[in-house]
Amino acid sequence: MKEFIPRGTRFVNLPSRFPIRGDGFLHGARIAYETFGQPNTRRDNVVLILTGLSADAHAASQPNDPSPGWWEAMVGPGKPIDTDRWYVICINSLGSCKGSTGPASIDPGTGDPYRLTFPELAIDDIADAAAHTVRALGVKRLACVIGTSMGGMTALALLTRHPELARTHISISAAVHALPFAIAVRSLQREAIISDPQWNDGRYDETTYPRRGMITARKLGMMTYRSAQEWDTRFGRNRIAEGQRTDQKHFDLQFDVEGYLESHAQRFVHNFDPNSYLYLSRCIDHFDLATSCGTTTEVALAAMQLEKALVIGVKTDILFPLHQQRRIAEGLGGANTDVQFLPLESPQGHDAFLVDIDSFGPPIAKFLSADW
Amino acid sequence: MKEFIPRGTRFVNLPSRFPIRGDGFLHGARIAYETFGQPNTRRDNVVLILTGLSADAHAASQPNDPSPGWWEAMVGPGKPIDTDRWYVICINSLGSCKGSTGPASIDPGTGDPYRLTFPELAIDDIADAAAHTVRALGVKRLACVIGTSMGGMTALALLTRHPELARTHISISAAVHALPFAIAVRSLQREAIISDPQWNDGRYDETTYPRRGMITARKLGMMTYRSAQEWDTRFGRNRIAEGQRTDQKHFDLQFDVEGYLESHAQRFVHNFDPNSYLYLSRCIDHFDLATSCGTTTEVALAAMQLEKALVIGVKTDILFPLHQQRRIAEGLGGANTDVQFLPLESPQGHDAFLVDIDSFGPPIAKFLSADW
Repeated sequence: MKEFIPRGTRFVNLPSRFPIRGDGFLHGARIAYETFGQPNTRRDNVVLILTGLSADAHAASQPNDPSPGWWEAMVGPGKPIDTDRWYVICINSLGSCKGSTGPASIDPGTGDPYRLTFPELAIDDIADAAAHTVRALGVKRLACVIGTSMGGMTALALLTRHPELARTHISISAAVHALPFAIAVRSLQREAIISDPQWNDGRYDETTYPRRGMITARKLGMMTYRSAQEWDTRFGRNRIAEGQRTDQKHFDLQFDVEGYLESHAQRFVHNFDPNSYLYLSRCIDHFDLATSCGTTTEVALAAMQLEKALVIGVKTDILFPLHQQRRIAEGLGGANTDVQFLPLESPQGHDAFLVDIDSFGPPIAKFLSADW
Repeated sequence: MKEFIPRGTRFVNLPSRFPIRGDGFLHGARIAYETFGQPNTRRDNVVLILTGLSADAHAASQPNDPSPGWWEAMVGPGKPIDTDRWYVICINSLGSCKGSTGPASIDPGTGDPYRLTFPELAIDDIADAAAHTVRALGVKRLACVIGTSMGGMTALALLTRHPELARTHISISAAVHALPFAIAVRSLQREAIISDPQWNDGRYDETTYPRRGMITARKLGMMTYRSAQEWDTRFGRNRIAEGQRTDQKHFDLQFDVEGYLESHAQRFVHNFDPNSYLYLSRCIDHFDLATSCGTTTEVALAAMQLEKALVIGVKTDILFPLHQQRRIAEGLGGANTDVQFLPLESPQGHDAFLVDIDSFGPPIAKFLSADW
């Protein structure tokens, strides 16, 4: 499989026997990251960003890669996560395919890609790899850990397993564990991929890539990343113009919403490794902060040694519904932490943090610009 | 394809040249129906039930088929739709595979199944076929038309196209047209079916049935027929016991919610014709009461000559959201119709009318038991 590594990516090697919680060790693994802004001499101005399932480390444009990043409007000089003040590190999750070691990487033990021999990964492992990376970059204590979606789960795992590593936390559209609707969505996404004959038990290559399965998985994702309310306004019952319809023999795509999903899915496939998608998707289902800590959710959250936290959720999110962010905020508030819970009205659902910068930007800017 | 006809089914032949609105004529077509209770001499005690996409005409047990029907708790002696008073006719939609003519039926012109040569069907055609059936049974005027889900759309079409045919209406979890989220769900369901190599452009048989595609389509359906809220309570993060997991080589089903979807889907496949599913699914997307009537939704609704109507919706319905039922109620109320709008709190989402009889039964019973 080709890899999908942004050009500004740098790497930190993990220890040569890196323990995978449920399943042995990884040898010769690495973590891909990018940085934005400059560290101060004490390295106490460091903000870590942990991402959702499909994001790479290229959060924003930077000198080594001037192309726009996935959070371009949020990260940069004078932006809400202000790189004039903060040294921002964005990490590509262990198990991904955007530079960090994952199922598409070469297993040094065999010289072949891991594919399904990659160990069963947990969010805890992703968090441990992120913590190692931060320390390898000379950072003893992060000013803030920001986690979005799956990255919010990774952040909770990191804060639990490495409680000394961060002073503050911004949790965005995250959860302490997945609930059945979200599990069902991801189960169906995985099923679409593994049912595609081209998946071939994970032994595809570029010419036999399980394209149909990945398209279905991505469309199903888009349906849960956005909201019905947004689509009512945006698409209504508008039709694709006759000449612009995908040439499908039967039951062709006729409505604008169908065309939108198709074009998004077309852009996504061939830009993500299907096995990596399967591993990370499963990780999210399995993560449970309480189980991870061997205690209750409330005890785990209350034990986090944070100075302050901002927890943001969106009322139209059907994948990580708002009551899950409320639970994080209430749990963190149980400790000596100054917690702000911010439920937003954004119509864009789970993905709102990527697009509704007008709503997300100011509270994040305010949190980070306070005197601390 | 085998057909799936309940044993108590009876048939009405459609006129030998039955016009299909968008696409020519059907020859030798028939409509399957069942009846419950007895007609009075004037046949003015007749209640018609129009069903959702996948239902057959066997709404309840009856002498010719004592097995429980899909609305067993609702239809029968002393039940909310009381067959001691009402003569109830339930019709299997034109285009379905439960006895009425559809893509799996034999085309008398060729002696082979229609498959994809079946004409492009509209909800209006299903309504016309239902109206013909009712008249063929000697009914001049229905006491009430009840429509659920797609059947609610069919009812609106029937009331518009045959305004003299019904005195009253009960509309359940219906809409004047589909909105983008629901269109996207059905588009993905169709895509799952037509992407299954065994679908083979509609030319499967019993041994090559597109099983995987139908399973995915059904699971996706179940996800939108129920609600996240119900599943949180019902399944939480419970796991399937080790010994009871489906034997899947990789990424097996581990959570109760996954097992629930799988067992529902397994029961559904091989009990519905995939081509029929595709045709009816598309019908729902295309239906638009306003377009159908060449006017606005509000004018079309206000023009219906009903004495009274009951419009029920469910707050947790994500497929036909509650604001769509409110719109129907407000529109019908624009005429001289006594309209009651009933938003229910049922946690079971779109499917609540099938299972939450405690909430749906009493208002339906009250509506039908009034002195009229």
